[in-house]
Amino acid sequence: MNVELISVGTELLLGNIVNTNANYLSRKCAELGLSLYYQITVGDNKKRLVNVLKECYKRSDIIILTGGLGPTEDDITKETVAEVINRELVPDEESKKRIKAYFDFRNTSSDASGISANNWKQALKIEDSIVITNDNGTAPGYIVEVMDTAVLKKSTGKGKRIILLPGPPSEMIPMFEKSIFPYLKQLQDTVFVSKMVKICGIGESKAETQILDLIEGQSNPTIAPYAKSGEVHFRVTASAKDTEEANRMLEPLLDELKKRFGDHIYTMNEEETLEEVVVKLLHQKKLTLATAESCTGGLFTGRIVNVPGASDVLKEGYITYSNGSKMHLVGVKEETLEVYGAVSEQTAGEMAEGAAKAAGTDTAVAITGIAGPDGGTSLKPVGLVYVSCYVKGNVVIRECHFRGDRQKVRDQTVISALDLLRRNI
Amino acid sequence: MNVELISVGTELLLGNIVNTNANYLSRKCAELGLSLYYQITVGDNKKRLVNVLKECYKRSDIIILTGGLGPTEDDITKETVAEVINRELVPDEESKKRIKAYFDFRNTSSDASGISANNWKQALKIEDSIVITNDNGTAPGYIVEVMDTAVLKKSTGKGKRIILLPGPPSEMIPMFEKSIFPYLKQLQDTVFVSKMVKICGIGESKAETQILDLIEGQSNPTIAPYAKSGEVHFRVTASAKDTEEANRMLEPLLDELKKRFGDHIYTMNEEETLEEVVVKLLHQKKLTLATAESCTGGLFTGRIVNVPGASDVLKEGYITYSNGSKMHLVGVKEETLEVYGAVSEQTAGEMAEGAAKAAGTDTAVAITGIAGPDGGTSLKPVGLVYVSCYVKGNVVIRECHFRGDRQKVRDQTVISALDLLRRNI
Repeated sequence: MNVELISVGTELLLGNIVNTNANYLSRKCAELGLSLYYQITVGDNKKRLVNVLKECYKRSDIIILTGGLGPTEDDITKETVAEVINRELVPDEESKKRIKAYFDFRNTSSDASGISANNWKQALKIEDSIVITNDNGTAPGYIVEVMDTAVLKKSTGKGKRIILLPGPPSEMIPMFEKSIFPYLKQLQDTVFVSKMVKICGIGESKAETQILDLIEGQSNPTIAPYAKSGEVHFRVTASAKDTEEANRMLEPLLDELKKRFGDHIYTMNEEETLEEVVVKLLHQKKLTLATAESCTGGLFTGRIVNVPGASDVLKEGYITYSNGSKMHLVGVKEETLEVYGAVSEQTAGEMAEGAAKAAGTDTAVAITGIAGPDGGTSLKPVGLVYVSCYVKGNVVIRECHFRGDRQKVRDQTVISALDLLRRNI
Repeated sequence: MNVELISVGTELLLGNIVNTNANYLSRKCAELGLSLYYQITVGDNKKRLVNVLKECYKRSDIIILTGGLGPTEDDITKETVAEVINRELVPDEESKKRIKAYFDFRNTSSDASGISANNWKQALKIEDSIVITNDNGTAPGYIVEVMDTAVLKKSTGKGKRIILLPGPPSEMIPMFEKSIFPYLKQLQDTVFVSKMVKICGIGESKAETQILDLIEGQSNPTIAPYAKSGEVHFRVTASAKDTEEANRMLEPLLDELKKRFGDHIYTMNEEETLEEVVVKLLHQKKLTLATAESCTGGLFTGRIVNVPGASDVLKEGYITYSNGSKMHLVGVKEETLEVYGAVSEQTAGEMAEGAAKAAGTDTAVAITGIAGPDGGTSLKPVGLVYVSCYVKGNVVIRECHFRGDRQKVRDQTVISALDLLRRNI
């Protein structure tokens, strides 16, 4: 089966946002074994959306549209799809209730949002469509199955499916995961099973070079690299007639990757993040954590707090941006700062030890560095970061040299600190 | 003039890379005042690229293609364009020299690359095209002007331009900046000037309702809404014969927006973020800042630290995730926690005041709430967050009810806290 993506939104054509939805959905289609030949982006313009829809409808079995389901005048996706396939828009009682509940909840606060007439537009569904509830917003999604394709002259005669999803990734992705992925999966007669081998502490091109022979020789299972800031992920996929057989096919390749990457691999579970692995390890070993951050200013701790239940392990965090706070909050010695400077191995070490002492925890992570754009010198250039980790009396320090802008340096620092903690607990 | 983007590359259809080229080029086209109606992504497949090219050629004056100019068998963009517009590929001596020089240079290094037969493919140009040199790689770009449009039956009869650029952003962007942008600019006789009016503290649909009459009545200048998590942005654009006239045309509309949104507007500068505005205000008023974060665990402070030079205002941050840390780090009273709970107006207020006292700062922001997924009760549901702000003896507290997952609740909290601080300093 082939599938086509249509992203609807003038903001995409103006370049105000990057189309990460197309990227996400393309990956998911590849995972499902669906052939994706075209991605199209079109503005909030009825005539042009009609043209695109008719073209896609001719050549594809499944069309996935994102965007244009909001409450404003500009949002025309649902209306336009209905028109192209000759269906009516009809009220959906369930959606109506959900919209009311959504606004009732918000109106108890000082937020002055009210339900405008436009919001009720979102309670209309395309006739005979399946409504997909949106747990993170007011716009539902829809699956429209068109089994009678006489409505368009040039159709191939086979059944078609049109899937409409809201544009914001925070709404679209959960809906896709929960409802659309399983729906598409059951349409396929081949089963695709994939694992994500997640690696950190090694660069992308180095990691790829280590498995070049596997990449070149691949057919089924396949292996594909995905670079993430500071991490490398390899997706390994097998297709077979059932899950068991696919799993059996994956096993030798996964074993080979384990052999080659060893403890650089932090998980093979697609859903699991590095911070989740770290929090899980702390839980398992009954260790508590404190943090002391300088150049990352809370980003590391923010990542830890991302994990539900982090409160069991994280006791305290100190954002010690000034020299004064490094001394009085986490007990860095004045002479250490004078002799070695705030960005030094010595300061990083004292910060970690001091944070653990001040908070009374078993472990602590400390970060000090130069994120840029200013503050670099020839001896201590922008991108120089010391990450340290205290675990029950032992302090380990890692010196890092990162490239890129302020944001990129800080992102890589957070990953490196998570990795250091992971390896030392 | 209207323009259309075609991104060529199977890696985009598989979701292996995010299409940031389309985003960059869209922004540039908007800046140039070119109307961009479609972005299309197609794989390295000749038949499908021919179809797409023919379709685009019918409806657009300018087509910009990225990708598929490399040395491999898969790279077919140049060949396919030449075929569609009935032109030959001819050798280009200048390109030949550059390719040789490029490899000579690399071969002095440890790189073991040699010139393969395929590389010479890159020395062929489309007949009568303008060759754009690539300072960061081997693939040149091309501008093809088609003034005789009899080659395609359905063309509009006007001159067409096809621009071919390499796929890697590190090669494409410098070429666009240096050669393509000036080329396109001289084709235009109108100048476009736009401002971004950034608003927070008011919901998207409410903000739009307030200016529905302006949106409906627009022609030139135009006004377009962009929703961002917790913020609303309106882009206001005027086209005129010169910048001065465009600015003059924008003025009354900007004044009207100022009148309607008042201090909900935090900037009209496209590049400026909310955290930058806050740090700038603190700087101007010579105020120092401390933070105390519970459910956001450092994210608020991380946003402040995002701003280069934040170290002048931010003194200390406390991540007070546990009740114990709320008491001993920022002096929340034990009875306050017992009587009102950790997530309460009272605790938020004491946290802000205590943070300012502990750090010796003029201002402080404190955050306590329930980000979920667990920890909610009927009285204090997930999404309930108290944000408080201390400024020189005064404490202001805002009660918020946010929807969405843990991440979304925390993102909205950070925006709300930045907004609260902005309004109170």
